[in-house]
Amino acid sequence: MKIAIDAMGGDFAPESVIKGLNQAKKELQDTEFLIFGDETKIRELLEDEKNVTILPTTEIVDFHDDPLRVVKTKKDSSMVRAIHAVNSGEADAIVSAGSTGALLTAGLLQIGRIKKVERPGLLTTLPSTDGTGFDMLDLGANADNKAEHLRDYAILGSYYAQHVRGIKNPRVALLSNGSEESKGSQMIKEAHGMLKELDRQGLINFVGNTEARDILDGVADVIVADGFTGNAVLKAIEGTLSTVFKLLKSTIKNGNLKTKIGGILIKNDLSSLKSMGSSAGGGGSLWS
Amino acid sequence: MKIAIDAMGGDFAPESVIKGLNQAKKELQDTEFLIFGDETKIRELLEDEKNVTILPTTEIVDFHDDPLRVVKTKKDSSMVRAIHAVNSGEADAIVSAGSTGALLTAGLLQIGRIKKVERPGLLTTLPSTDGTGFDMLDLGANADNKAEHLRDYAILGSYYAQHVRGIKNPRVALLSNGSEESKGSQMIKEAHGMLKELDRQGLINFVGNTEARDILDGVADVIVADGFTGNAVLKAIEGTLSTVFKLLKSTIKNGNLKTKIGGILIKNDLSSLKSMGSSAGGGGSLWS
Repeated sequence: MKIAIDAMGGDFAPESVIKGLNQAKKELQDTEFLIFGDETKIRELLEDEKNVTILPTTEIVDFHDDPLRVVKTKKDSSMVRAIHAVNSGEADAIVSAGSTGALLTAGLLQIGRIKKVERPGLLTTLPSTDGTGFDMLDLGANADNKAEHLRDYAILGSYYAQHVRGIKNPRVALLSNGSEESKGSQMIKEAHGMLKELDRQGLINFVGNTEARDILDGVADVIVADGFTGNAVLKAIEGTLSTVFKLLKSTIKNGNLKTKIGGILIKNDLSSLKSMGSSAGGGGSLWS
Repeated sequence: MKIAIDAMGGDFAPESVIKGLNQAKKELQDTEFLIFGDETKIRELLEDEKNVTILPTTEIVDFHDDPLRVVKTKKDSSMVRAIHAVNSGEADAIVSAGSTGALLTAGLLQIGRIKKVERPGLLTTLPSTDGTGFDMLDLGANADNKAEHLRDYAILGSYYAQHVRGIKNPRVALLSNGSEESKGSQMIKEAHGMLKELDRQGLINFVGNTEARDILDGVADVIVADGFTGNAVLKAIEGTLSTVFKLLKSTIKNGNLKTKIGGILIKNDLSSLKSMGSSAGGGGSLWS
């Protein structure tokens, strides 16, 4: 397998991208990597160049670029070149931490979609209290979804949970405003029927509707949502976590001596709790 | 003004309802109260009976009752009788902490809507980090909204913030998947245009779109959302807060001696933080 890597995408590129690659190379001994970006910097950061081809590029797609135009305006960017590599068959997949909008649009225009999947969806793995985490999609690739799209997301999400996260028979739930089958918008009710049918056919393991209140408790391995609601829920989780930690910090900082000492004593434990926030936050900032 | 009170609605009724009334009576010296419920219990809990009429009822609407049928099946319930009092003109308004679905449906069937307001909306006041809080609606009275409903909610929410919370020229924001005007579903984009028009007419102070990530930071005094998304966002906030406090508690409980001592020292401060959670949770449980 050959993977095209956009080394220049994301806030801490190319450092974080190449550091990740160094780790991945240890596990994926048979995979070849085509790395697009600043050759000098990449070479400095790489631990070894086994199975690696560096392809120098001169431009970088950033968050200010109009997603619809990067294919034309930034032809020699690491992102567009990496996408082209998949399009031309030189690579089998692309990894990029750059602007999600640009990646989504350029990917759609250049590489296209899986046959019969009408709309792309954004998926992230979020942490849950039981430690297993869950995959949620769509997180905002679409502002208006149809029930058919959600049916596709159920299949894609289930496949991802099974083959990427190694979960057997992943439980798929549909995000609604109540756990009862009768709850939901017209579109969600229609999607519910389609997911039941997929379950009947043995294609997914559908466990019914779930509410946003329960998703962090690990009620399912895959949460299917329309892009508008999925986006709002992820951002609400992210905003709430950030608010709680801000308040906790200021409570301890502005507290009396007793509170301050208490704060110092539990500081390390709070950090580990906070990492939960970064997972959601990281997922969030990806597609903002 | 005469207010009808459903004394038997809610988890801690009639105690919490009458305790609240005892407090309210001190501020609202000129208001008359019609209290529907268990006469003996109400009399025991009331501090004084000035401006109070107790109207005994024999039934209680609970969360298992079918909202569509309570008007017929629980005619002598405190909720239905209190609603009838408004309908017949004996009272000007009703206060109930009972099943939101039942209150909404029975209220709609018996009392009806404000002229030109096509759909009722659920509103709650949520806490924000700047301490002022904000009103959000619709939180789930509707699963499918049209842009026109959101226009009505902007006016209703603005009026509420102004006249109930005393905020001058309240900032109204529209919940979307991005702060830019171009973001949103077709319906949200249409609603955006309508809110801009209301602002132009001087009817509301529209500050544009906001994302769920920022609402707890006090970006606006009123957040307008469609019922499906508003419901999901409120439940996501609620679920995240409950998850964080659960994790915090277990972190301290399962921690080493240092962590445990730290936990004891900051316990009181955590309780005050947690009250933020209950505000959201309380709002949440109302309409679940």
